[in-house]
Amino acid sequence: MPELRYNRLNDTWVIISKERAKRPHDYPVNWRKEVGDIKKCPFEPGKENLTPPEVFAIRDEGTKPNTPGWKIRVIPNKFPALRPDEEFYRISEDIYDKMGGFGYHEVIIDTPDHYKHMQDFSIGELFLLLLTFRERMKQLYQNSNIYYVQIFKNHGREAGKSLYHSHSQLIALPRIPKRINTQINQCRHYYREKERCLLCDEVKYELDQQTRIVHDNNRFTVYAPFASAFPFEMKIVPKFHSHDYTKTTDEELNDLAEALWTAVRKLSMLFEDPPFNLILHTAPPVRDIPWDPNYFYNMDRLFHWYIEIFPRMAIHAGFELGTEFFINPTPPEEAARYLREKKI
Amino acid sequence: MPELRYNRLNDTWVIISKERAKRPHDYPVNWRKEVGDIKKCPFEPGKENLTPPEVFAIRDEGTKPNTPGWKIRVIPNKFPALRPDEEFYRISEDIYDKMGGFGYHEVIIDTPDHYKHMQDFSIGELFLLLLTFRERMKQLYQNSNIYYVQIFKNHGREAGKSLYHSHSQLIALPRIPKRINTQINQCRHYYREKERCLLCDEVKYELDQQTRIVHDNNRFTVYAPFASAFPFEMKIVPKFHSHDYTKTTDEELNDLAEALWTAVRKLSMLFEDPPFNLILHTAPPVRDIPWDPNYFYNMDRLFHWYIEIFPRMAIHAGFELGTEFFINPTPPEEAARYLREKKI
Repeated sequence: MPELRYNRLNDTWVIISKERAKRPHDYPVNWRKEVGDIKKCPFEPGKENLTPPEVFAIRDEGTKPNTPGWKIRVIPNKFPALRPDEEFYRISEDIYDKMGGFGYHEVIIDTPDHYKHMQDFSIGELFLLLLTFRERMKQLYQNSNIYYVQIFKNHGREAGKSLYHSHSQLIALPRIPKRINTQINQCRHYYREKERCLLCDEVKYELDQQTRIVHDNNRFTVYAPFASAFPFEMKIVPKFHSHDYTKTTDEELNDLAEALWTAVRKLSMLFEDPPFNLILHTAPPVRDIPWDPNYFYNMDRLFHWYIEIFPRMAIHAGFELGTEFFINPTPPEEAARYLREKKI
Repeated sequence: MPELRYNRLNDTWVIISKERAKRPHDYPVNWRKEVGDIKKCPFEPGKENLTPPEVFAIRDEGTKPNTPGWKIRVIPNKFPALRPDEEFYRISEDIYDKMGGFGYHEVIIDTPDHYKHMQDFSIGELFLLLLTFRERMKQLYQNSNIYYVQIFKNHGREAGKSLYHSHSQLIALPRIPKRINTQINQCRHYYREKERCLLCDEVKYELDQQTRIVHDNNRFTVYAPFASAFPFEMKIVPKFHSHDYTKTTDEELNDLAEALWTAVRKLSMLFEDPPFNLILHTAPPVRDIPWDPNYFYNMDRLFHWYIEIFPRMAIHAGFELGTEFFINPTPPEEAARYLREKKI
């Protein structure tokens, strides 16, 4: 019996289609791709000259920028979607509106190891990656024309990855993206009514229920959202209230790394390396929003940062693109049970 | 030089990334798939007993339902996302909200010919398909619990198609989808300001400019939208004002068929059968919207139906899913030029 479920945070509806119910064995397994040729890989240690100079790195003591000895390396994208040397402007083109393509588009090389992917990383390696996200985000927010930094990872061809060597990406935008705007509106609306944070309530409820919980540690919980748009979708949420990822402490990042390690390994082992996107949602930094002087009012209380993992085993087709409804053939309660029980 | 462009109708922003500019030869060509085995195909004439009984068909005179002799055949989906025998209800599940999975999910078998795809159809065949869309939509709107009928076509595996034999689909929903809601809001906002229809203005401007026009006939124009989210995206829009597809006349559908024939053939020949989604956007029928008694006020003047074609040659990855920003590596002006010049 199908059911329509409301995702309050995103203001979207999802069809949980039990009729088409898919269990893990109904999905393709073994997505593992042909290994990219290491000789042609521009992300290998020793080939730092093939990429633009690094803007941030975690390196062994005493090693110089743009030489080997790095654990994580952040570089400008060679084919950037946005550019820091573009002018920041807003202008009309007759009946249309546009802005200059100002911004940053960077690649975070997660590891020097050509053959290692996120599910192979240790908790310590994931900690360094999460720390890199935080530090580079902080640096980019120094620029007052940067309104939002979107950090994401595309894993596998079906999730949009084009280069084999494991990497994450960051795009720093000259405006707050629509999806974050929607989430802020929804959280504000909820707060106005309840005087409570939407995600705090959700986490508390999910921990009470347990049916959709995948994993739980000291500070973070991993669960399959009630209105999951993707089969085996997961949300990693701090159990303490926090609106801003840049304010996380190293201790918190350590627990986050453990939660992420568990989530990614479980997913990867259940389907033998399926494609997925990892997306970090956090509150934007305070900026001048001339059309809404109260945009940032109470932001620290109403927004709650989190990470989402979207496995890309089903394609969003004409219906999803046309309506913004999603069809999910695996109820999150079932997905959570399979993920929870998967030994890693 | 990249540029951010605003899509007013959808309230989204697109990065037109000229740095990564892709011309037709930068995309993979020859997407043509392995032909699905005709012996296993449940959509062949003579195998009508393998599908649920038809609910609509265009047939040769004197032939009986669920027997050969059909040109187009509409059947319930065997694995429906929504079901007409589900109850129509709205209910909460503690902190969450949900609705019964009531609705219709139907397959429109476009042609009895296993080997024919949309780009191979004649204008006459496309006319019958567009007429089927109109008639079945009208029939389903008899049911007052159906708030919207989304008609779409997934062509090619990358666009979400799972069965080889050419078909379209229809999902009749118990609520107005978010994207249509957004479009109505945006059109209303525009109308309030200008006392003009947004799409009427856009069509007029595009026809004046000519730079993004792909094709133009008596009643319809085909163009690459200013803020195209997908490379080689096209919009087919009536040049006369009309909010409701169910009210189109046969003469209008005939011109629409010519425009659609041209658009699909040009796209298909430019890339050798690329994957794409076709989506029909039209005003919802008048229903009781208890929380907004004026929802349908002026709808006939502010909304303008249209068809969009989304080629799926680029994958929407973590960035697009996270932000609802899109990155389009081919400026629509270039896409339109290639499409316009493509001989068919």
